Amino acid sequence: MNEIRIFSPATVANVSCGFDVMGFCLDSVGDEMVIRKVERKGIHITRIEGFDLPYEAEKNVSGVSALAMYDAIDVDFGFEIEIYKKIKPGSGIGSSAASAVGSVFGMNELLGRPFNKTQLTEFAIKGEALASKCEHADNLAPAMFGGFALVKSVSPLVILEIPSPEDLYATIIHPQIEIKTAESRALLPKEVALQDATTQWANFGSLIHGLHTGDFEVIKNALHDVIVEPHRSKLIPYFNEVTKAAINAGALGSGISGSGPSIFSLSKGIENAINVKDAIEKVYAKTGIDFDIHVSKINSKGIKIIN
Amino acid sequence: MNEIRIFSPATVANVSCGFDVMGFCLDSVGDEMVIRKVERKGIHITRIEGFDLPYEAEKNVSGVSALAMYDAIDVDFGFEIEIYKKIKPGSGIGSSAASAVGSVFGMNELLGRPFNKTQLTEFAIKGEALASKCEHADNLAPAMFGGFALVKSVSPLVILEIPSPEDLYATIIHPQIEIKTAESRALLPKEVALQDATTQWANFGSLIHGLHTGDFEVIKNALHDVIVEPHRSKLIPYFNEVTKAAINAGALGSGISGSGPSIFSLSKGIENAINVKDAIEKVYAKTGIDFDIHVSKINSKGIKIIN
Repeated sequence: MNEIRIFSPATVANVSCGFDVMGFCLDSVGDEMVIRKVERKGIHITRIEGFDLPYEAEKNVSGVSALAMYDAIDVDFGFEIEIYKKIKPGSGIGSSAASAVGSVFGMNELLGRPFNKTQLTEFAIKGEALASKCEHADNLAPAMFGGFALVKSVSPLVILEIPSPEDLYATIIHPQIEIKTAESRALLPKEVALQDATTQWANFGSLIHGLHTGDFEVIKNALHDVIVEPHRSKLIPYFNEVTKAAINAGALGSGISGSGPSIFSLSKGIENAINVKDAIEKVYAKTGIDFDIHVSKINSKGIKIIN
Repeated sequence: MNEIRIFSPATVANVSCGFDVMGFCLDSVGDEMVIRKVERKGIHITRIEGFDLPYEAEKNVSGVSALAMYDAIDVDFGFEIEIYKKIKPGSGIGSSAASAVGSVFGMNELLGRPFNKTQLTEFAIKGEALASKCEHADNLAPAMFGGFALVKSVSPLVILEIPSPEDLYATIIHPQIEIKTAESRALLPKEVALQDATTQWANFGSLIHGLHTGDFEVIKNALHDVIVEPHRSKLIPYFNEVTKAAINAGALGSGISGSGPSIFSLSKGIENAINVKDAIEKVYAKTGIDFDIHVSKINSKGIKIIN
């Protein structure tokens, strides 16, 4: 096998109470990539469609993670990477993470899987860092492992796969506005009240318990963010209206996807998720702001080979 | 049935990363109480052994929780309470919680169980508040439900029962020193760094996952407290020596039990727990400070009727 085509999924990081440590994987949104073994040594990005991104491997998220992996192996051949980008960079649903895991996952498959998924994520962190200026894995881990992933720590990298109920669905709206990462970061409080922090870990522990037991009432009660959302939601137009409409339409909870501007909602069953989509569309249709909206099953497999 | 004898267990609150929201229940340490239906209306504490505590119901933790429950029922009889106190007040292993749950659990049994365990815990919160000056349930919940209990919120009271592996054991040392609650509270930071808070909920989420999956490596990696322990441990003599000795002897983790001065360790299997006990004894034997030390299985049942 000298060539492989893969689907590299979009992901939702933070998941309300799990700021910086939790993410889940989407099914219906993702990039496609082709990875090819070639005689010419090194990493070569030969095609990019969808968005305008650099071809130089050192300046491309996929390229940087691929180079990190290439440096760790000793081979007399190289790899070509084609990127069919469907996740808009800056949308807040793990666009860079999808690019970063895609190249290393594909190369690993072509090499006969010398690395496990945690090792691959370590390479991908290098690519992710190019985009986000810091080493984090809360989009990478769910893209690589699927389902809900808890990044217990980055150094050493410890990823825990959290089970989730079969009929959990996500609705994601991506308002077509740009939020500068620097602006979003600047809004993060450096210090938080101990009482709020305590509420947050009570919620996060409950979320883990609710996902394990498949108890939707527990999941619903856990999906609150008292730490980051009050600050960052200011950058997202009509955030409160969207989350209120989602909850009224039957969502378990709603929150900022990553650092935004996308907003995710979780629902029990696809019917609820579609009702939530309809309710959110109604809110946003009035605003004059362009948007994409998706309903997706939680993708329990993560990144995968396609034909 | 007009009289009941109960075992009301000691408990460990906080469990390192679960400050204010998590506790577990002990098997080998606890109070005994006798609750008796009598003609004379009201709540009457008729016997207290072990420690010197007030007989007036309004001034006694057991009495206050019993009165809270008594106010919620309409009966033409009363209750007598006998308390055989074995958990020293102020030891940090839920002495007041054991007293608070004991009376209401016993009364509920004699009444034919009109209340569920969460409702009983709501009454017990009133008694606990007398001792600790604030309404909290992280000792009450594990005493009432057994095992590991996560207090998701106090108002409304939501308690989640977290499963735990069969062969998990606790070692508890209680140095015979007094820590004033006010002093211990004063050491709590009002604000914490967002980065530390994030580490704490990553740990706490991991602990919940480790308990669900019975993965001792995950439990071990999760048992860290970067928020409260660095402050409160200063009040406990030889804290660092004890936790170091415990880890070296094979403990999964060690931390402050409640607000101290007791220190808990968790171990896989009773042999490890006994090794940990021996190692801690060696440390404390040299200090000249009196201490009690116990090894206990995690008590999965909680408070219970005895003959």
